[in-house]
Amino acid sequence: MDQLQKRPANYVPLSPIGFLPRANAVYGDRTSIVYGRVHFTWRQTHDRCRRLASSLVRTLGLRRNDVVSVLAPNVPAMYEMHFAVPMAGAVLNTVNTRLDAKAVAAILRHAEAKLFFVDYEYVRLASDALQILAGSGAPVPLVAVIDDLDRLTGVRLGELEYEALVAHGDPASVELPELLDEWDAITLNYTSGTTSAPKGVVYSHRGAYLSTNSLIMAWEMGAEPVYLWTLPMFHCNGWTFTWGVAARGGVNVCIRENRPAEVYLAIARHGVTHMCCAPVVFNILLEGDANARLGKTVHVLTGGAPPPAAMLERVEKIGFHVTHAYGLTEATGPALACEWRAQWDSLPLSDRARLKARQGVSVVSLADADVVTDDDRMARVPHDGKTLGEIVLRGSSVMKGYLNNPEANEQAFRGGWFMTGDVGVVHPDGYIEIKDRSKDVIITGGENVCSKEVEEVLFRHPAVADAAVVAMPHPHWGETPCAFVVARDKDAGVCEDDVIAFCRKHMTHFMAPKKVVVYDVLPRNALGKVEKVKLRDAARKLAPPAQKTKGKQATTASGGRRDEQPVAHVMAMSRL
Amino acid sequence: MDQLQKRPANYVPLSPIGFLPRANAVYGDRTSIVYGRVHFTWRQTHDRCRRLASSLVRTLGLRRNDVVSVLAPNVPAMYEMHFAVPMAGAVLNTVNTRLDAKAVAAILRHAEAKLFFVDYEYVRLASDALQILAGSGAPVPLVAVIDDLDRLTGVRLGELEYEALVAHGDPASVELPELLDEWDAITLNYTSGTTSAPKGVVYSHRGAYLSTNSLIMAWEMGAEPVYLWTLPMFHCNGWTFTWGVAARGGVNVCIRENRPAEVYLAIARHGVTHMCCAPVVFNILLEGDANARLGKTVHVLTGGAPPPAAMLERVEKIGFHVTHAYGLTEATGPALACEWRAQWDSLPLSDRARLKARQGVSVVSLADADVVTDDDRMARVPHDGKTLGEIVLRGSSVMKGYLNNPEANEQAFRGGWFMTGDVGVVHPDGYIEIKDRSKDVIITGGENVCSKEVEEVLFRHPAVADAAVVAMPHPHWGETPCAFVVARDKDAGVCEDDVIAFCRKHMTHFMAPKKVVVYDVLPRNALGKVEKVKLRDAARKLAPPAQKTKGKQATTASGGRRDEQPVAHVMAMSRL
Repeated sequence: MDQLQKRPANYVPLSPIGFLPRANAVYGDRTSIVYGRVHFTWRQTHDRCRRLASSLVRTLGLRRNDVVSVLAPNVPAMYEMHFAVPMAGAVLNTVNTRLDAKAVAAILRHAEAKLFFVDYEYVRLASDALQILAGSGAPVPLVAVIDDLDRLTGVRLGELEYEALVAHGDPASVELPELLDEWDAITLNYTSGTTSAPKGVVYSHRGAYLSTNSLIMAWEMGAEPVYLWTLPMFHCNGWTFTWGVAARGGVNVCIRENRPAEVYLAIARHGVTHMCCAPVVFNILLEGDANARLGKTVHVLTGGAPPPAAMLERVEKIGFHVTHAYGLTEATGPALACEWRAQWDSLPLSDRARLKARQGVSVVSLADADVVTDDDRMARVPHDGKTLGEIVLRGSSVMKGYLNNPEANEQAFRGGWFMTGDVGVVHPDGYIEIKDRSKDVIITGGENVCSKEVEEVLFRHPAVADAAVVAMPHPHWGETPCAFVVARDKDAGVCEDDVIAFCRKHMTHFMAPKKVVVYDVLPRNALGKVEKVKLRDAARKLAPPAQKTKGKQATTASGGRRDEQPVAHVMAMSRL
Repeated sequence: MDQLQKRPANYVPLSPIGFLPRANAVYGDRTSIVYGRVHFTWRQTHDRCRRLASSLVRTLGLRRNDVVSVLAPNVPAMYEMHFAVPMAGAVLNTVNTRLDAKAVAAILRHAEAKLFFVDYEYVRLASDALQILAGSGAPVPLVAVIDDLDRLTGVRLGELEYEALVAHGDPASVELPELLDEWDAITLNYTSGTTSAPKGVVYSHRGAYLSTNSLIMAWEMGAEPVYLWTLPMFHCNGWTFTWGVAARGGVNVCIRENRPAEVYLAIARHGVTHMCCAPVVFNILLEGDANARLGKTVHVLTGGAPPPAAMLERVEKIGFHVTHAYGLTEATGPALACEWRAQWDSLPLSDRARLKARQGVSVVSLADADVVTDDDRMARVPHDGKTLGEIVLRGSSVMKGYLNNPEANEQAFRGGWFMTGDVGVVHPDGYIEIKDRSKDVIITGGENVCSKEVEEVLFRHPAVADAAVVAMPHPHWGETPCAFVVARDKDAGVCEDDVIAFCRKHMTHFMAPKKVVVYDVLPRNALGKVEKVKLRDAARKLAPPAQKTKGKQATTASGGRRDEQPVAHVMAMSRL
């Protein structure tokens, strides 16, 4: 048995970039991407990606493991780079477009980016970031602008331009996919990075491949999907569906912004069947006509818990079928999915919403997912739906690790597990449910904010002696950061507006607290640790009232507590 | 990037046996297997498999790479061994129950089986095979009988018994899945073995895992399938659905025989949603009431081309939805699937049948599938639907190789490809279609017969001077072997019945020719090779008339040539 050696015909390194040549061979004449008036087939996408990859290697001299950073919305170039960059042996680093220049600079510096692609809309942000980078003496990457493919703007930033690189490439010169090791890095995704040690999550080709397959199965996404890009591709590489749509020979419907009109127009025009989104997008979907109905079902995969029963009912009445998943960047996107059981179909809406709100069962690419006790034993908790512990994961879709951050790696990998930091229970039926999210993370509009990073800025404010930041529910954004501070000079006090303005100046806007509460002293336990549970309770009471609901809401709102619960509380469970 | 090492939490060897602990955790309380009055949950199946694995190691002393052969129909034990045997580090060898004692003995000898599980119904066949084995001086394996779990028979063959091994095992003692290397062997499937060098196809854990995922995706099998075992599990491990049903948390409906009443009863009683079968099973499905209708759609994955239009219409009218795949044991089952395109839905039935008859596009686990010229260059043929070449495959779901058969491996692996031996074309839309099947293979009732093996027997007949065997279409069996022989003594001639009887004595019945034609001389080309194309033409003319059709057939039979085509011709394309 052992004498049978690996051969090129029976051992091919696993990589999602292999889905592209297969799509070329199998789905060549079918539409790969639509964006405004732009339309590509899989044959063209394959050709364009190979051209770009060859330019990266031959013209720009990129080498294995070089990082290519990108600042762009969901445009065709962003999609193509998910194949072209790793085809060149390089590592794709997609940067959150909501960050500020300082945060972008911190990422470029930590990633040691060699090349930086910038969408025309983000040229100002990028050049500010580059200036900060240059000012700090760090090496500055080559820069290439991505003009709008549908309506050319002529905006430039430096000499290089995306379409020219595609045009000048030689599609025949790329042969890399055959040579790679499946453990090689494919992408780099930052979960934080504004102030302290940035956490750059590295995926392997193998992990990305397995995760892609696994999520196609978890969502039961069949052949020929028409996939609308409402989820930013810079979030865990679009939860791997950047690659997954190629595996399924689907259509990528790219839109620049998630405005209701644009979303509904795209759904109608292209016959959208699938989309992923953060729960905040449900607000957008519900902004339109309350009586609107989709022509056919659109399957929606959403991170974090689904909306509360009433909202779920409204969204599903329009024609969206919602599947709920839980994941985090470190797990290559969704790691648990709330697999629906046929036997639940007949339950009342409130029960269905309760079951759907659970984070669910592990996707197939994970070898194991469980909840373990928060001590050295790390024992698995009983599956009683009550015993709390930390949610842990194990499997080939877990990240390679954090780039250049051994300390974070030591914390994250323990006892043979990846530690999510989230607290949960396992129900008797095996479904995992989060009970308390990682203390550090606030999720606002689908973006993660690390409370420690906000606190670091607060501590730099001259009037602040002590500070702690927790999540405050918010009817639109799900959560927003809420700061509790202690004045350095009790008599002078602390001005809320002043602190907020200070934070907005020193960090990306969405990370800045929306509310600052002044305490005489922060509640601390015997060990001196701030009791954030108490602060979260206080923040909940300070939260703005739940959003006024429209349409059918009134008739179902009597259904009980869940219906009154703001979106915020449920969204708070998301880590995606 | 390269400093991030593999850890237990992010690098787990790929193996389909991992689907079982996951099913235990995620689907524990759901039904895993039903068989008559027997009913197990995934928790029980997980427990039973671990018990058996521990008995194999602790009681019977099995070691890594030891072969465990099994002669059994689709009963629960057969299913369980697909997990339990590799969990013990051993290699599962499922033996075709239609073989004769000599063929079974040849396989046991070549596989060097250490343990041999025998279903009570096959005790006679097994003991004959063991006698042959002992007579040849080859080592004889330990034997364990599998009694019927639903109706105990008390039949025994030696001391060991399956249920006792399960009962005495210790589920806590098995830890192997963590330790395996994904390139290790998991199963061994013989494609031939009666006379000449047997071809034992070895699968790796990795290949089986990837193939399982890939076929779930190709067939779009969602969660909670109810899978009816009409396809023998000894065919490529049930085209990987032995493992696939566990990955999906489905129900395995096991039946001992594919009788129409039993099949339809199982479908009705258990709400079957999925089944795989050779095309010959369609005859069985159509034996019942012509007006019968299923309560809900049953998805059928069939190897080889689908039935002709009229039969397809009848089968689909009953409520079966047919998907057509092409594969071979060496590719871990289906390698191409005829992925259906929505745009074809509106075509007339004859066009749909023509499109569905194509072998299709590569499954996701293959890196590549193509057709190459039959010369040293092995150039890819143009995708024009006309240029003939050999179908070749490449990817991690291709077998490790043939066991102890370097010559067969050299022939099968060439130019970085696995050579299927089948001749086909690529259509402009990327779909592959077989035009001429491998010259050596005759497919009768879903079983492969190697024409060379039949010829070897014919040459041993005293009255035969020359012989060649080809496929002859047959209305029920698809194909049967047809022999062309030359008499050693022209005057004495050759007696057809005598030759057939001789063959049936020296080989498994279904392999023996059903027709023997005496020629003065066999047609040979300039190089002395028998021109089998001419013999196949002759055999086609000699074939029994197409089966009398029932029910609606008459009204659609006017639809053209395809409708008149016997099932046989289409089935002939199957290699599964």
